[in-house]
Amino acid sequence: MSLEDALFAELCRIPLIDPHTHINPHAPASRTLDDILGYHYYTELAHSAGMSKECLAPDFDPKERVRTILGYLECFDNTVQYSWFLEIARTFLGFERERVTAADADWLWNAAEKQFGRPDWEEHVLKVSNVEKIFLTNDFDDPLEGFDRERYVPCLRTDALVFQLRHSEVNDRLARATGVVVKDEESLRTALSELFNRFQKKGARACAISLPAEFLPEPEATFPSEQIGAFQHYISDELAVPVFWLIAEKCDELKLPFDLMIGVNRGVFRRGVHQGQDLFDQRTSLIQYEDLFNAFPDVTFPISVLTSSQNQELASYAWIFPNVVTSGHWWYSNIPVHIERDCRARLQAVPKTKQIGYYSDAYKLEFILPKFNMYRRILARVLADDFVRDRGWTETQALELGRMLLRDNVKRIFKV
Amino acid sequence: MSLEDALFAELCRIPLIDPHTHINPHAPASRTLDDILGYHYYTELAHSAGMSKECLAPDFDPKERVRTILGYLECFDNTVQYSWFLEIARTFLGFERERVTAADADWLWNAAEKQFGRPDWEEHVLKVSNVEKIFLTNDFDDPLEGFDRERYVPCLRTDALVFQLRHSEVNDRLARATGVVVKDEESLRTALSELFNRFQKKGARACAISLPAEFLPEPEATFPSEQIGAFQHYISDELAVPVFWLIAEKCDELKLPFDLMIGVNRGVFRRGVHQGQDLFDQRTSLIQYEDLFNAFPDVTFPISVLTSSQNQELASYAWIFPNVVTSGHWWYSNIPVHIERDCRARLQAVPKTKQIGYYSDAYKLEFILPKFNMYRRILARVLADDFVRDRGWTETQALELGRMLLRDNVKRIFKV
Amino acid sequence: MSLEDALFAELCRIPLIDPHTHINPHAPASRTLDDILGYHYYTELAHSAGMSKECLAPDFDPKERVRTILGYLECFDNTVQYSWFLEIARTFLGFERERVTAADADWLWNAAEKQFGRPDWEEHVLKVSNVEKIFLTNDFDDPLEGFDRERYVPCLRTDALVFQLRHSEVNDRLARATGVVVKDEESLRTALSELFNRFQKKGARACAISLPAEFLPEPEATFPSEQIGAFQHYISDELAVPVFWLIAEKCDELKLPFDLMIGVNRGVFRRGVHQGQDLFDQRTSLIQYEDLFNAFPDVTFPISVLTSSQNQELASYAWIFPNVVTSGHWWYSNIPVHIERDCRARLQAVPKTKQIGYYSDAYKLEFILPKFNMYRRILARVLADDFVRDRGWTETQALELGRMLLRDNVKRIFKV
Repeated sequence: MSLEDALFAELCRIPLIDPHTHINPHAPASRTLDDILGYHYYTELAHSAGMSKECLAPDFDPKERVRTILGYLECFDNTVQYSWFLEIARTFLGFERERVTAADADWLWNAAEKQFGRPDWEEHVLKVSNVEKIFLTNDFDDPLEGFDRERYVPCLRTDALVFQLRHSEVNDRLARATGVVVKDEESLRTALSELFNRFQKKGARACAISLPAEFLPEPEATFPSEQIGAFQHYISDELAVPVFWLIAEKCDELKLPFDLMIGVNRGVFRRGVHQGQDLFDQRTSLIQYEDLFNAFPDVTFPISVLTSSQNQELASYAWIFPNVVTSGHWWYSNIPVHIERDCRARLQAVPKTKQIGYYSDAYKLEFILPKFNMYRRILARVLADDFVRDRGWTETQALELGRMLLRDNVKRIFKV
Repeated sequence: MSLEDALFAELCRIPLIDPHTHINPHAPASRTLDDILGYHYYTELAHSAGMSKECLAPDFDPKERVRTILGYLECFDNTVQYSWFLEIARTFLGFERERVTAADADWLWNAAEKQFGRPDWEEHVLKVSNVEKIFLTNDFDDPLEGFDRERYVPCLRTDALVFQLRHSEVNDRLARATGVVVKDEESLRTALSELFNRFQKKGARACAISLPAEFLPEPEATFPSEQIGAFQHYISDELAVPVFWLIAEKCDELKLPFDLMIGVNRGVFRRGVHQGQDLFDQRTSLIQYEDLFNAFPDVTFPISVLTSSQNQELASYAWIFPNVVTSGHWWYSNIPVHIERDCRARLQAVPKTKQIGYYSDAYKLEFILPKFNMYRRILARVLADDFVRDRGWTETQALELGRMLLRDNVKRIFKV
Repeated sequence: MSLEDALFAELCRIPLIDPHTHINPHAPASRTLDDILGYHYYTELAHSAGMSKECLAPDFDPKERVRTILGYLECFDNTVQYSWFLEIARTFLGFERERVTAADADWLWNAAEKQFGRPDWEEHVLKVSNVEKIFLTNDFDDPLEGFDRERYVPCLRTDALVFQLRHSEVNDRLARATGVVVKDEESLRTALSELFNRFQKKGARACAISLPAEFLPEPEATFPSEQIGAFQHYISDELAVPVFWLIAEKCDELKLPFDLMIGVNRGVFRRGVHQGQDLFDQRTSLIQYEDLFNAFPDVTFPISVLTSSQNQELASYAWIFPNVVTSGHWWYSNIPVHIERDCRARLQAVPKTKQIGYYSDAYKLEFILPKFNMYRRILARVLADDFVRDRGWTETQALELGRMLLRDNVKRIFKV
């Protein structure tokens, strides 16, 4: 067995705490193959490769939809996203052939029906995947009830508050969730206190937000001084920065890490599939967050970025700022060539205690295993090359470093 | 033989269709060694390394010019451009020494004279290089006559139309080529229809343009409403976007792919050698093309970029937008370290059907072989590492992927 | 012995000329372990990992400070900066254990006291490190007296002149150093002539400056025409560009290379440790220097950049502009993953005569060895992979290329 393989096998024995997912704790595992292939990674790649969006309509027969998507799978069987699906099919469905094609549609559908229908399916997936805890991404008005909050750790997602507060739908939801009608800074502060207190009581361990490339949080940004009734009178851009700043203050007060996922531009491909419309502008910089990092020295900011060139910034900012932590490999950077380089840069320059190795970003439990395996294979290679071979570390020392990235840092930073 | 070598050998057996060159179909092969060493890659590197521009004057003795350039070759024998020349000398001139120096000037000149003078030289080069078809880059007023259009495929270059239409010289050429005096939007539409129809009749398979870093095509840009005579009254910047948009409309109408070569700033080194004055500004983004990609879902846009960080954008945009295709490794990105990384990123994230692996960008036939060999060696390595070793593909499967990148996609996308 | 190891061993035999350091020639070697661990790389990483700044106060007991920093060393023993320290401890202090921890504080302190106290310590370090000459970075009012200027080569640092001339403290220092009270363009020209002449007489071999990401040197920038007394009336930004331009003119006149270190933003982390507050904005481009490179064809500009993506620009600009030279691997780019890629890009595209391989940027002599060894190990790997294996060069040829990068180019470019 090669050193890489040996390290990979050992890394897989470390129980995972997955620090960022979109899992629905009321339906964490897939129920049909449609839940797997309906993941935007497959619908968007199939659409990009020529599939019409027709089959994605809600009333389209799910089995037929799966067959349609599988028909396009061959067009992107080179991608790493395909390899996740193949690993799911092999690990969870007993698929044994080398490649998946449309001809496997019935077999896969039936196998999924049988497996996913098992009463212990959720437990089974967690056990096979060696997962202990899973962080959620909860809407601000999520009641956070009806699931095991030790296993599924609540996290407050604040995108809607920051970017859509002027929309009456969001404002109404906030009023219902907190009992406060928000129309000015004072009432917003009251509502946020309500909301953060509730999340904290329910065991929330982080606050999170995704931010567009041009976002520039400045402390000088204030709420309009003349309050003409409600926030609806202001454009979103005027509200975003001061609301964001108030949320950072709440994180400071409640000692919650604030996950910043930086750089996504929403709705770029206007007629794209659901969740397959967002892209990015590489012209963004962490210098835009200079004031924020200086203003909140006691808030830990786990940062995710979308490009490998911004990862060089991230590694440098985390090397200098005590409150900046590197976090995972996000979205368009979550492919092996970028992960490997970004991982190396962080390991060579950032204190090991300040690195959150990976999160799955999964919507269904079955994706945690193949995504983490992709990361663990790369991590094993980097540990083998850069630490065992180049620097003479023992395998045990290298694995201790791996354990910090995969588990210990998550436990310490998020206090779980 | 290593796996890489075996894959390389097999890749070389795939007949090439070179989808972007600057070959002159009336003089496709070199006639003297001066045609080879006069390529801007050599003149600019020699000038950069200290050579005076004196020897580049049109009336300078070509043999002496070659001797002068060879005298500076040693200063850049580390570069990949040098290695192309060495491969040409070995493959086509029978050169057998390890390095080329100024002392080889006479030998090389004479060998070139002898070989290039063979009546079958063009055929010979194409056969040795295993090239079947070669795309051209034709000026809009090129008559497209007098050459084999099955072998040399016409493509309409539109840089002058978009960026220089207000110059009377260009306007006059357009009038002569189309019979239409262009002075407003309507006459321009008529002229473009003329022009596109003629190119289509002559078998044109693509429209192409190179664009500066700051170019921002927006649908709102319109021609000035008050038409005071001719376009000459407007500055180029006012005309560029609406003309570009009209050309995209013509591509849509005639189902022509529109090659966008994005990011070059012209004339940066003002006293540089011919074609050795252009550079780039890394601060550019494909988000600038958001409106274009949305507005023309039926136009295929093969995109070339100049930097490895913009390649991460390109791979992401091609993963999401059905009409965005990755195209080759262009100019300042056309060196092994960038090709390898960019190729990996594309193969890991973009449907394999949407990737045009490589084009030579050559001015003379002899350059197709060494440039494609550089690419094929890297492709062989990526296929061996990422697909055969890491993902368990067979050699045959890996070669099928290589064939798509080198040939099949070009045939399908450009309908040749 | 592997090819890489053989090449590394040979590269180490080439006597070094270190073309950029911050060595104090009056105290070039360390006197206590505090001089080593007080280097900002250690204080900033320890602070980033959680160490309070308390121990960094000037009146804090140095031995206790060292113990405190060593206590945090374990948090960043994954970094390459840690590996430099380990190599110093092994090479210069006889440390033999595998890792350094706080428990080694006394042993290391005492070993350092004993070694650093040797009367021949400076000579010893230079000999062990195989260093022949060391470039300094001198303030404009440095008397340049009292040290061996053949060994320690003066270089004029111009940051204060360009960015702080309006501050009376700087202006007063300039007046004392040159005898000229600077209040307008004319008096500034006189003072600069004084200053450059003095530096030249003392053997200065370069002029150097570090520049922020947004710096845009344009020839049109002029000194305010109405001179209301002194420069103090103007804001720094108004003065920076015209002063910079005058300095470039002096470099032109005196044939001095002008080192540009591009992209650092000062004081980003406001409460960071001394010298640990600067970061960068990746959104910068060498296109900002277009006018400068065109205006001064006879000034050699060795350029350092902070990011790997800007390195692609640098390699391209050095490939085109005769007066642009690549220089070292600076600061946040000075970690192996970036060095290897940047080094490859330069070797594949830039004439070998125009590359300054590396400089240590050291404050104390002991750092020259581990930093150059990091670079030489990477260079050995690149020479082995890209030149010996891929291109069939002999080891001797590869070493000749290494010698140019490490020594010959420095000698020729800086005329030492």
